[in-house]
Amino acid sequence: MNKKKISIVKIGGNILDDPSALHDLIKDFADLKTKKILVHGGGKSATRLAEKLGVKTEFIDGRRITNKEMLDVAVMAYAGSNNKEVVAQLQAFGCNAIGISGADAGLILSDKRPAEPIDFGFVGDVKKVHSDRLIGLLNLGLTPVFCALTHDGNGQLFNTNADTIAAEVAISLASDYASELLYCFEKEGVLTDVSDENSVIPNLEKTAYDRLKSEGKIHSGMIPKLDNCFYALENGVASVRIGSGKILSDETIGTTIKI
Amino acid sequence: MNKKKISIVKIGGNILDDPSALHDLIKDFADLKTKKILVHGGGKSATRLAEKLGVKTEFIDGRRITNKEMLDVAVMAYAGSNNKEVVAQLQAFGCNAIGISGADAGLILSDKRPAEPIDFGFVGDVKKVHSDRLIGLLNLGLTPVFCALTHDGNGQLFNTNADTIAAEVAISLASDYASELLYCFEKEGVLTDVSDENSVIPNLEKTAYDRLKSEGKIHSGMIPKLDNCFYALENGVASVRIGSGKILSDETIGTTIKI
Repeated sequence: MNKKKISIVKIGGNILDDPSALHDLIKDFADLKTKKILVHGGGKSATRLAEKLGVKTEFIDGRRITNKEMLDVAVMAYAGSNNKEVVAQLQAFGCNAIGISGADAGLILSDKRPAEPIDFGFVGDVKKVHSDRLIGLLNLGLTPVFCALTHDGNGQLFNTNADTIAAEVAISLASDYASELLYCFEKEGVLTDVSDENSVIPNLEKTAYDRLKSEGKIHSGMIPKLDNCFYALENGVASVRIGSGKILSDETIGTTIKI
Repeated sequence: MNKKKISIVKIGGNILDDPSALHDLIKDFADLKTKKILVHGGGKSATRLAEKLGVKTEFIDGRRITNKEMLDVAVMAYAGSNNKEVVAQLQAFGCNAIGISGADAGLILSDKRPAEPIDFGFVGDVKKVHSDRLIGLLNLGLTPVFCALTHDGNGQLFNTNADTIAAEVAISLASDYASELLYCFEKEGVLTDVSDENSVIPNLEKTAYDRLKSEGKIHSGMIPKLDNCFYALENGVASVRIGSGKILSDETIGTTIKI
């Protein structure tokens, strides 16, 4: 039996920070005819809120350290401002969105990341996605909108990488649906030259990825993002694409990841 | 056919602000064997956050004016901090809570309150509760946890009184369930002498309420709260009680409102 398609769309922080890009993406997402799930990062809202509140933002290797104060800020920004703004806008486009964190309906259970070698603080690594509960929401005709927070089941919330949440959600649904994972960010796709939006790689296979990495053409934040893509494909996700918000309405653009 | 019971529990801001009282209430709520819904106010968290962010809190007749900056603060505090904290704690007690605002699943549609005679800003008056969608969530075994925000369906979020949300939710479910509405706050019940917790009125009927009001024994914030109670009873809600969090586990205490 052919599985029904589901699209899991992750939108990056830079899109959230750009009202016009966000509006266009939300409209295109609302127009998708398949079942769908949105996952959003937090963008600069948490950093800005932390600044205003005098909470110091600490990064190690480009990754935020989440102390208690920073977790409180993330909960306000991600589950509050960002999530409800996206939900209200989707509702305005006729998409019956329901905004959730991984704690809601106990959807995403995480373990606190070990304090060694680096103590990232209240950061959770996904342990289990309760896909049965997610399917329950989908079957009510709802469109789940995840912010990047999870919980340990014992009352503790965690900051969790939104790319990882999108991949884990897509994987958890892969036995019930043909999961399509779409990463939308501020670039047109995976580029061979980061300064040239015309250098989009249409199809990226694992061997080519490894080569581009060793040549230093793919680096920094793109590496964990692409690792998530291959991880998803290796664990049953049917297809993965990366690009701007336009990849939602045009299947021929962006970068298709292949194994 | 006897209708199944559902308990709609509203917890006030002063309970949210007291970690020990909140912990006890959450445990008692999780222990309720009936279907249930929690509605929480915001307490002082929004006021405190506004102060830290330099947003001026303006009140008219004890009611907050919600300008754009204050709405942003309310969304962060109510839908972010308060809602996710309550959900994570309920999950820890084995209650499968799902935190929502009135925008989520389009559950509560509001109209912006008219600017005359007083312009309260982004405050919404409840127009419709989509009880069918709420029942959908309940039938999945989920326990909805509402923060006091609604939307207009066109992308605008509103601040909405939590007592009113609780009453409107209870009314919307009254044709499908025997709705029990429980208002939990920092007092033991409706008091004839506000300084004496032993002056709880066990049963309060409309005629007695009108008399106590005219005598000035019931005044200020208790009037809209009790008006909500009578409004709920007059619109199909089976029972209404007011008191401390202990009324969840002990039916013999607090004040029962009667028409």
